[in-house]
Amino acid sequence: MSVHLLPVPGIPAIRPDDDLGRILAHAINESRMGVKPGDVLVVCQKIVSKAEGRVVALDSVSPSPFALSWAETHEKDARVVELVLRETKRIVRMERGNLIVETGPGWVCANAGIDQSNAVEEGTVTLLPLDCDASAARLRAELRGHLGVDLAVVITDTFGRPWREGQVEFALGVAGLAPIEDLRGNADLYGRELGVTLIATADHVASAAGLLMGKSDGIPAVLVRGLAAKEPAADQPRGGRALLRPPENDLFR
Amino acid sequence: MSVHLLPVPGIPAIRPDDDLGRILAHAINESRMGVKPGDVLVVCQKIVSKAEGRVVALDSVSPSPFALSWAETHEKDARVVELVLRETKRIVRMERGNLIVETGPGWVCANAGIDQSNAVEEGTVTLLPLDCDASAARLRAELRGHLGVDLAVVITDTFGRPWREGQVEFALGVAGLAPIEDLRGNADLYGRELGVTLIATADHVASAAGLLMGKSDGIPAVLVRGLAAKEPAADQPRGGRALLRPPENDLFR
Repeated sequence: MSVHLLPVPGIPAIRPDDDLGRILAHAINESRMGVKPGDVLVVCQKIVSKAEGRVVALDSVSPSPFALSWAETHEKDARVVELVLRETKRIVRMERGNLIVETGPGWVCANAGIDQSNAVEEGTVTLLPLDCDASAARLRAELRGHLGVDLAVVITDTFGRPWREGQVEFALGVAGLAPIEDLRGNADLYGRELGVTLIATADHVASAAGLLMGKSDGIPAVLVRGLAAKEPAADQPRGGRALLRPPENDLFR
Repeated sequence: MSVHLLPVPGIPAIRPDDDLGRILAHAINESRMGVKPGDVLVVCQKIVSKAEGRVVALDSVSPSPFALSWAETHEKDARVVELVLRETKRIVRMERGNLIVETGPGWVCANAGIDQSNAVEEGTVTLLPLDCDASAARLRAELRGHLGVDLAVVITDTFGRPWREGQVEFALGVAGLAPIEDLRGNADLYGRELGVTLIATADHVASAAGLLMGKSDGIPAVLVRGLAAKEPAADQPRGGRALLRPPENDLFR
């Protein structure tokens, strides 16, 4: 068993209302990489957000006094701060110019995942998809229609982490792949229960794709071949939402 | 450009004082996968620790009153708790039975990375290597000697993360690979500075290998081909230590 990571070349700039499934299927077909059942298509959040119209013109945003105050103190764009706050369910840290928040769907990340770079056009920003698992499932169904093959789909974004420098790709939306591999009950060489019990497979997939996704290179999709991805069993966790630790079990919120 | 992840089969159980470089080189040669300059060999910490003799017999450990008290309250092995405390520079969280610590070298992880599963023999545990970057550099030099090729080496361990369920592979020791890719100064499509500026490449490599490393399968090493790994430039960060955020810049310690 080995795994192959293949960039999907030739994906054009995506705009609101583009048919992303058709565009990705076309790029895959043109690349002649072929697709097989169990392959995983990893897609960066940015192009999903754009196709879904999760794009906001900053000129349309009126910052609240709270947003204005924070933005002024830390030399930020108050309109972006306002959008971050609108996407926020709970502020986790608001310190030294950093705004680490828990978003509506539950992602903990800087600036609610709002990114000003490589937006649709000047003066716009992209927000995270409203429901990344639904986006992944929809994209998967569209790709099945265009390609006639059941791929898994993982939608990713690049976030920082506590304790460590640098950012990595994380899985936000997952369809057709078990997001977590549960080793509980498996025994080690001495029959003792394994210390590591839950593996975040979908985050491993996201990071693997991250090796080829470097933002400036314009590779927004990577095919991961060799994992024989399939739907999780009925009693197993599913979707990227399974990777969200409930706040009440979290020591760092 | 594509990336290939190849498990290294046939690595026997490792014991203290084993010549790990020779054993890995032998397994690579036997597998006929071939190696090329710029390939990255990802090795799990466990076998490095064992070869370096970072193994402790629990019977040899006398727990302190502090360790005994915590262990009793939370139904832990007091000897393991004692070892965790000995490896600890600072306790980050000590709550609900969890002991999240900053180790001497600076890793923030549960139980100082001490693992009771798959140890050398019953009643022993393994500690993290004393200096993972030195271990990676040594292993790299040994592999160069045996194989005649300059591979990069990444030593990994499986840690949990705040906010997210499941564990993933992280890079602890790195040699021959830039651990962080610095995109600062790169412009986006509109000439604006990129929102993502530092990519933790070595963690991406570790997680990619994690797709094949599942602990119960006994695959402790994975070859990553296609990254054209090379030494970072002289003015760039090097080693796994570059992935450690200094405590004074960290919002979650």
